[in-house]
Amino acid sequence: MATINNGAVIGEVDKHIVRATVIQASTVYYDTPATLDKAERLLAEAASNGSQIVVFPEAFIGGYPHGANFSISIGIRPDKGSEDFRKYHASAIDVPGPEVDRLAAMAGKYKVHLVVGAIERDGYTLYCSILFFDSEGNYIGKHRKLMPTSIERVIWGFGDGSTIPVFDTPIGKIGGVICWENKMPLLRTAMYAKGVQIYCAPTADDRPVWQATATHIALEGGCFVLSSNQFCRRKDYPAAPEYNFEGSKKELTPDSVVCAGGSVIISPLGEVLAGPNYEGEGLITADLDLKDIVRAKFEFDSVGHYSRPEVLSLTVNDHPTKPVTFKSKTAKTEEKTN
Amino acid sequence: MATINNGAVIGEVDKHIVRATVIQASTVYYDTPATLDKAERLLAEAASNGSQIVVFPEAFIGGYPHGANFSISIGIRPDKGSEDFRKYHASAIDVPGPEVDRLAAMAGKYKVHLVVGAIERDGYTLYCSILFFDSEGNYIGKHRKLMPTSIERVIWGFGDGSTIPVFDTPIGKIGGVICWENKMPLLRTAMYAKGVQIYCAPTADDRPVWQATATHIALEGGCFVLSSNQFCRRKDYPAAPEYNFEGSKKELTPDSVVCAGGSVIISPLGEVLAGPNYEGEGLITADLDLKDIVRAKFEFDSVGHYSRPEVLSLTVNDHPTKPVTFKSKTAKTEEKTN
Amino acid sequence: MATINNGAVIGEVDKHIVRATVIQASTVYYDTPATLDKAERLLAEAASNGSQIVVFPEAFIGGYPHGANFSISIGIRPDKGSEDFRKYHASAIDVPGPEVDRLAAMAGKYKVHLVVGAIERDGYTLYCSILFFDSEGNYIGKHRKLMPTSIERVIWGFGDGSTIPVFDTPIGKIGGVICWENKMPLLRTAMYAKGVQIYCAPTADDRPVWQATATHIALEGGCFVLSSNQFCRRKDYPAAPEYNFEGSKKELTPDSVVCAGGSVIISPLGEVLAGPNYEGEGLITADLDLKDIVRAKFEFDSVGHYSRPEVLSLTVNDHPTKPVTFKSKTAKTEEKTN
Amino acid sequence: MATINNGAVIGEVDKHIVRATVIQASTVYYDTPATLDKAERLLAEAASNGSQIVVFPEAFIGGYPHGANFSISIGIRPDKGSEDFRKYHASAIDVPGPEVDRLAAMAGKYKVHLVVGAIERDGYTLYCSILFFDSEGNYIGKHRKLMPTSIERVIWGFGDGSTIPVFDTPIGKIGGVICWENKMPLLRTAMYAKGVQIYCAPTADDRPVWQATATHIALEGGCFVLSSNQFCRRKDYPAAPEYNFEGSKKELTPDSVVCAGGSVIISPLGEVLAGPNYEGEGLITADLDLKDIVRAKFEFDSVGHYSRPEVLSLTVNDHPTKPVTFKSKTAKTEEKTN
Amino acid sequence: MATINNGAVIGEVDKHIVRATVIQASTVYYDTPATLDKAERLLAEAASNGSQIVVFPEAFIGGYPHGANFSISIGIRPDKGSEDFRKYHASAIDVPGPEVDRLAAMAGKYKVHLVVGAIERDGYTLYCSILFFDSEGNYIGKHRKLMPTSIERVIWGFGDGSTIPVFDTPIGKIGGVICWENKMPLLRTAMYAKGVQIYCAPTADDRPVWQATATHIALEGGCFVLSSNQFCRRKDYPAAPEYNFEGSKKELTPDSVVCAGGSVIISPLGEVLAGPNYEGEGLITADLDLKDIVRAKFEFDSVGHYSRPEVLSLTVNDHPTKPVTFKSKTAKTEEKTN
Amino acid sequence: MATINNGAVIGEVDKHIVRATVIQASTVYYDTPATLDKAERLLAEAASNGSQIVVFPEAFIGGYPHGANFSISIGIRPDKGSEDFRKYHASAIDVPGPEVDRLAAMAGKYKVHLVVGAIERDGYTLYCSILFFDSEGNYIGKHRKLMPTSIERVIWGFGDGSTIPVFDTPIGKIGGVICWENKMPLLRTAMYAKGVQIYCAPTADDRPVWQATATHIALEGGCFVLSSNQFCRRKDYPAAPEYNFEGSKKELTPDSVVCAGGSVIISPLGEVLAGPNYEGEGLITADLDLKDIVRAKFEFDSVGHYSRPEVLSLTVNDHPTKPVTFKSKTAKTEEKTN
Repeated sequence: MATINNGAVIGEVDKHIVRATVIQASTVYYDTPATLDKAERLLAEAASNGSQIVVFPEAFIGGYPHGANFSISIGIRPDKGSEDFRKYHASAIDVPGPEVDRLAAMAGKYKVHLVVGAIERDGYTLYCSILFFDSEGNYIGKHRKLMPTSIERVIWGFGDGSTIPVFDTPIGKIGGVICWENKMPLLRTAMYAKGVQIYCAPTADDRPVWQATATHIALEGGCFVLSSNQFCRRKDYPAAPEYNFEGSKKELTPDSVVCAGGSVIISPLGEVLAGPNYEGEGLITADLDLKDIVRAKFEFDSVGHYSRPEVLSLTVNDHPTKPVTFKSKTAKTEEKTN
Repeated sequence: MATINNGAVIGEVDKHIVRATVIQASTVYYDTPATLDKAERLLAEAASNGSQIVVFPEAFIGGYPHGANFSISIGIRPDKGSEDFRKYHASAIDVPGPEVDRLAAMAGKYKVHLVVGAIERDGYTLYCSILFFDSEGNYIGKHRKLMPTSIERVIWGFGDGSTIPVFDTPIGKIGGVICWENKMPLLRTAMYAKGVQIYCAPTADDRPVWQATATHIALEGGCFVLSSNQFCRRKDYPAAPEYNFEGSKKELTPDSVVCAGGSVIISPLGEVLAGPNYEGEGLITADLDLKDIVRAKFEFDSVGHYSRPEVLSLTVNDHPTKPVTFKSKTAKTEEKTN
Repeated sequence: MATINNGAVIGEVDKHIVRATVIQASTVYYDTPATLDKAERLLAEAASNGSQIVVFPEAFIGGYPHGANFSISIGIRPDKGSEDFRKYHASAIDVPGPEVDRLAAMAGKYKVHLVVGAIERDGYTLYCSILFFDSEGNYIGKHRKLMPTSIERVIWGFGDGSTIPVFDTPIGKIGGVICWENKMPLLRTAMYAKGVQIYCAPTADDRPVWQATATHIALEGGCFVLSSNQFCRRKDYPAAPEYNFEGSKKELTPDSVVCAGGSVIISPLGEVLAGPNYEGEGLITADLDLKDIVRAKFEFDSVGHYSRPEVLSLTVNDHPTKPVTFKSKTAKTEEKTN
Repeated sequence: MATINNGAVIGEVDKHIVRATVIQASTVYYDTPATLDKAERLLAEAASNGSQIVVFPEAFIGGYPHGANFSISIGIRPDKGSEDFRKYHASAIDVPGPEVDRLAAMAGKYKVHLVVGAIERDGYTLYCSILFFDSEGNYIGKHRKLMPTSIERVIWGFGDGSTIPVFDTPIGKIGGVICWENKMPLLRTAMYAKGVQIYCAPTADDRPVWQATATHIALEGGCFVLSSNQFCRRKDYPAAPEYNFEGSKKELTPDSVVCAGGSVIISPLGEVLAGPNYEGEGLITADLDLKDIVRAKFEFDSVGHYSRPEVLSLTVNDHPTKPVTFKSKTAKTEEKTN
Repeated sequence: MATINNGAVIGEVDKHIVRATVIQASTVYYDTPATLDKAERLLAEAASNGSQIVVFPEAFIGGYPHGANFSISIGIRPDKGSEDFRKYHASAIDVPGPEVDRLAAMAGKYKVHLVVGAIERDGYTLYCSILFFDSEGNYIGKHRKLMPTSIERVIWGFGDGSTIPVFDTPIGKIGGVICWENKMPLLRTAMYAKGVQIYCAPTADDRPVWQATATHIALEGGCFVLSSNQFCRRKDYPAAPEYNFEGSKKELTPDSVVCAGGSVIISPLGEVLAGPNYEGEGLITADLDLKDIVRAKFEFDSVGHYSRPEVLSLTVNDHPTKPVTFKSKTAKTEEKTN
Repeated sequence: MATINNGAVIGEVDKHIVRATVIQASTVYYDTPATLDKAERLLAEAASNGSQIVVFPEAFIGGYPHGANFSISIGIRPDKGSEDFRKYHASAIDVPGPEVDRLAAMAGKYKVHLVVGAIERDGYTLYCSILFFDSEGNYIGKHRKLMPTSIERVIWGFGDGSTIPVFDTPIGKIGGVICWENKMPLLRTAMYAKGVQIYCAPTADDRPVWQATATHIALEGGCFVLSSNQFCRRKDYPAAPEYNFEGSKKELTPDSVVCAGGSVIISPLGEVLAGPNYEGEGLITADLDLKDIVRAKFEFDSVGHYSRPEVLSLTVNDHPTKPVTFKSKTAKTEEKTN
């Protein structure tokens, strides 16, 4: 069948429409098998609506530890913090590994492209990653968050340039950038240069100003932005003292909202196609007309006719960086996609 | 006295507050002396409010030719277009030159930092520029638009990397980027790297989505964004047939709004401090608390702790580029600020 | 057998004569397959006349949008313009790609060197390019227009120095420069320095003064100039309102000439060998005596004995420039020819 | 009063019109005082017509030795050639010197800008130069031909980059380039970069193709081209055997035309304003509307918006070059104008 | 074994003696293959005499066009001249190229150092060059005449400072300067500074005063001077009208001498070792005692103890100068020797 | 009356003829007053022949110590040598000083330009100098030998770049260079650059090869060469043991020739106009036709059209160099002439 590059083939309108669903839901904290069950239920629902691509929030698998501080203060490291980390580490998943196999099988079963935020375990370091699966049931690659924000730096490692992929799929070029990474102009530019059309933005930021950033990216990148956040209440986390919410200004009840969502789908022309949903868990769905991309890029293409490469040029070091290299192994780039 | 860099000196609160005014007003088209008279009246009003920095819209001097197309279609160049251009060229100003001297004198008289959009004439090529003046009456430099948008490319040349200055003044570091240049992620990053604190964004874009871009920049750059647009009605331009509005969907009356403004001032935390004004000509004013910058950069600094230079590195060629170089002249970079 | 460099081998007179045909014909607008069919018919006719090199006009594939303005006026961007661009983008071709393969096959089938103007699609940016094919059926390279003229800058990107090739073929050194690029003295000098002998000038300029430029280049460069333009009537474009002619002084009938041609072949001594044809579509053919080049260069050689390199020296940056570079990819210069 | 840079001041139309005369006349051979007398008569006539700038042909003072070959063949140097050169050398003038003083006085007396081709004597080397005088009676500088053509190289030296001036005068920016130098694309580009508006082209080329070059330069440079040639008959030179015409195909009578003129004035839009005159000696005059320059540059400016300096950059070594330098003398650049 | 620098190693007398042959012979005009055959016959003869270095005259390959003037008079360029040039251009050789390969093979076959004057073709510009080959059959470099004399400037280009080599060979340091270049004091000084010991002076000057110059150079440079000239009669050139002798005072018969030779070998002490031969074609041979160099330099060394560098200093710009430079090519100096 | 620059004024033939006399005579050794008397007798004789310029040999005043070695061997300095030097020092003259006054008076009395070799005493250092006087009786300057030859370095100091003058006189530009300095190519080039027309070469070299050098200089410099040498017998020096001739191969009689003269006058075309005289003391006289200079420079001008300043450039440090400088004194160049 025809590949859809640029919305350009006349008389084949339907090929250019992609149905996309963004999931707004919370992790089953400290219970990864249950989280995967929940993922499958939501996926099935999206597929029954005809969705071709489904995007889950940041850290959906493994969990986003809202309100936790792992008992860390500067120069102070109580045992409680270490134990909290041990449990969190236990909820993370190896990539590849059995949980990845299960997710791949789901994508194949429901014939959807699946994009899911997960806490990846690589030995004793955790990464906040996005995993990508195609609709034929293959795991196709991952993105590791390049730069965790604030205290995230205590629990997550830093990705490198070898895992900022964009995948060329039958429904368009898919990539993903996590939470405040989306505020990094050079990283976004690398994504644009790789040709991203369906730009997934799993996040944990539920503030209204996030909408400005999401809209801006759609305009700047000439791409669809699919931003997915969790909607969580206090009761979605273990009770204190197993899990303490620190720093809250007011008393939290079990029903207190600790992450308000705000998932949204925006077109390359800056139009909001679905969302934002600040009400609760749910699926938001929109039909993406890929021809809007060429309409948008007519006047602005930040890596094409609107760039000034002789003045401003970005270099991306996309080699993997490792602290120890063994000469007997050929350097292999982790992701070959572009 | 203490210089105000980053809101960091405790107990000197007042020093960190800068009163800023954004002007939303239209050019007196084809009449540069009258436009300068109008600029002076508006400047006087802002100064009387205690403003320390005043920002005028894109092309305020020389004019932004809304709705014009210089009779140009592809392969067609009627005399009308050349004559329109000749008049437009005649309204532009040399930099330096007598109009620049007058603006400098105004800044000195009213003791304000002045940032003004102007059409700059360099021989037969025009540039859409921003001119900067300090409160002691000195012209301190300019920015030339790097990449005109769409049909602007027919009337304006392309700036180079030698005129993307940021000026270190007693009221903070001031720079400017024009209209859709603000959508260029690499150019913005260059501005952040130069330390911009008061980011001026003269524009001609009056669409609501512009607000998303302005907010995003404030968050991404950790800076104040002062966006200034003209508010113009059809009658602010010469009547047809001297000046034709092309491409309007509906009939224009003399009172039809052809540019609706939307001038706005936004804080580094994404807060709207003044505006947006979509109602008419006017001044919007806000007190900028420079200490907000450090508050914002605590968690996100795109050219500091939140960058990943070993993965993503931007090179800015800030040498002037000229088609012909004469060896007897010493190469002089136009702007020394950095 | 002997390569023909400079008309120099005594007693082998016939080797120095190259039969050249310039095509003056219009695109089948918005129908690239039909345009390719038409190209093949014209190529067959030229080949049956014994032509060894055939030159098509600027934008023959993809079309030159005479009279269009994509509904663009300054600050105004109606949906009609974006949709017009989307269709125009759909008629352009990827290089390489299936249309390039078909053109290569044609060149091989008819055993001619083929030089054809085409709109090249690179993601969402279009380039006005010339494609070159040898008589053995190989695509050998391209030139991208460095600087579009006037409103062309709204629809086409800007080439860089990596695609200004001259190809050393068995029938001489072939290069091409498009339309008003031919008025750029530094670009022409770069072509002369690469040794161009058969200088192809696909154009869309049908004014009489174009003949002065074509003659001057032949004299200045000591080369044959083969200028090819389309001859188009209004009816060669879709009818209004699908396709509107803007800016015409008088009412257009279906038979109105919208591009009058003027294709011409000129010798290095300034002699008109064929054309100019201002009458209609057609082929013009001439025998180029390559020995005329050395006769002409005897007295004037702008990059040889008549240059003053210690006073006037041109530097050509022929590296490709890209806004984003990925380190894992080896830098490859697009064209190796010189 | 206002300086006229670019035809831009509205309501001061008359200031932009410059009346220019091109002289087509022959030298009084071997009689420099008589040639100066003739120059004065012609200048007086032009001034009485209201001319503000008057251009004389190449080598008007000193003479252009049409048909001479100084008895030189390769390896053969008869005494006749040396003696012919001695006489030619005697007719040349020192710059500065008494003849230059007389020309300056003439320019002041008739209040015209004077541009005159002259053979300049610098010790034993002659240069084919253009001398420039302002309307107040000052000698303002000179241009030395950079590259003599063909056998001219036997009698004239080679100028360097220090004498390619453009003078900013009250009637516009004036420069000059001699004969086939006009075919040097890099030299022309240097002139454009210096802002030439009134481009004087004294020449000795009377072929019809010269008109193509003159028209092309006007278009390429966006300037007025004033091409001045001598009209000479055989009898304007000494009779044989004192002066022999070599290489003529047919017998020459005293009335045979040996240089047919072709002087012409062309506008930046490529329009012929006066001439070409192939009939005899005479003055051609036209009113130059300097506003045409900006009209022309709107769409094409080879050193402005239509250049690509990051791809193509010309370096001009405008330091004087001398075989021997004495340290006790301060290096002084001959021309300071630009 | 010992290198022979300066005749200094005691007891190894024979090493310091180099047998040198200067060829006095004419080109087979317009027939380069036959000229190469003749070169080989002469080389074989010299080698059979034990010669280690053989020097051919200026322009031996390609021919020195005595008495020709290419029908050029000032301002007159008949077709005959262009056609004459085309034929002359056809007789020239590319460097490197097949004729260079053949010469290298000859040098290797006869085990001699070969120095040969040749007309070099570089595109459409010809250079009067000297080619150098070592006795192992390698082409080692070239010198291009810096400044052609008189009407030579019509047919030959001007070399630059990158091709004034001196080669350090097992038989001494070899360099060459052509004809009246030998009268350029600064060029000779550059050769002395490079250490030339065997100074080859191919020439076309057969006047007696040439002997004064040759003797002076030997004394001034402290080097052996090997001056080689052609001996030609009228019949060595094509008959009229194909080839016309111009400027002869008397009628030429086929046997008239048109270049009388005068080839000579002179020692550093000013002694004539062989020749001058003004009688006919022939070989002159001498044994060069390299120890004479140190004997001569004892009292005079113009680039050593007898220089006054703090008063008189020569700068040689030996970078190649080219009108156009492409950045993608590494600058390569043509000759590496010094 | 008119200055004679370049032989160029028609109808004033006589002005260009200068009668010149070269004196070949010996010093009255150790008797400077007698030497001056002899000088006056010779000058009177030349003047009576109508001479306008008279040139005496190297060291005519003070003496050229042929055959002396001042008893110096390396490391050995007997008293005899010191005493010999004391006497030699006593015979030298101060400049200015009474002997200079007397010479000036002679020049005025006989109305000749006088050029005379003299040993100049400056404190305890002697210089081998040339003194110049005009025909009105003025001392006008001097040249100090830059580089003494061989053992001369024991008795004479080294001149600097401040005393290499050329004097512009009514009979032409006069300069002088002493003995083997004439073999210094850079020094000669400095003289040519200063425009020397009458090149005086006082010498002590009586070998036949000196004629080659003199002829070469005339050709190379395009100037008249007036070479003056002493003719001395053994008896012109004090008898042994007061004055010993060292190193003679054969026994000397009082009549043995110890310097054979060879004085000569040569034209710029290489013609010998008078001499060489190897017979005895005497005057040689010739009429110099200054117009020959321009005839000669037509084809060769080493500092004009035949130079390549961008390749070969000579710097002359013509500041005086002194071992001790007092700040209170303004640096004054010794000679202002050029």
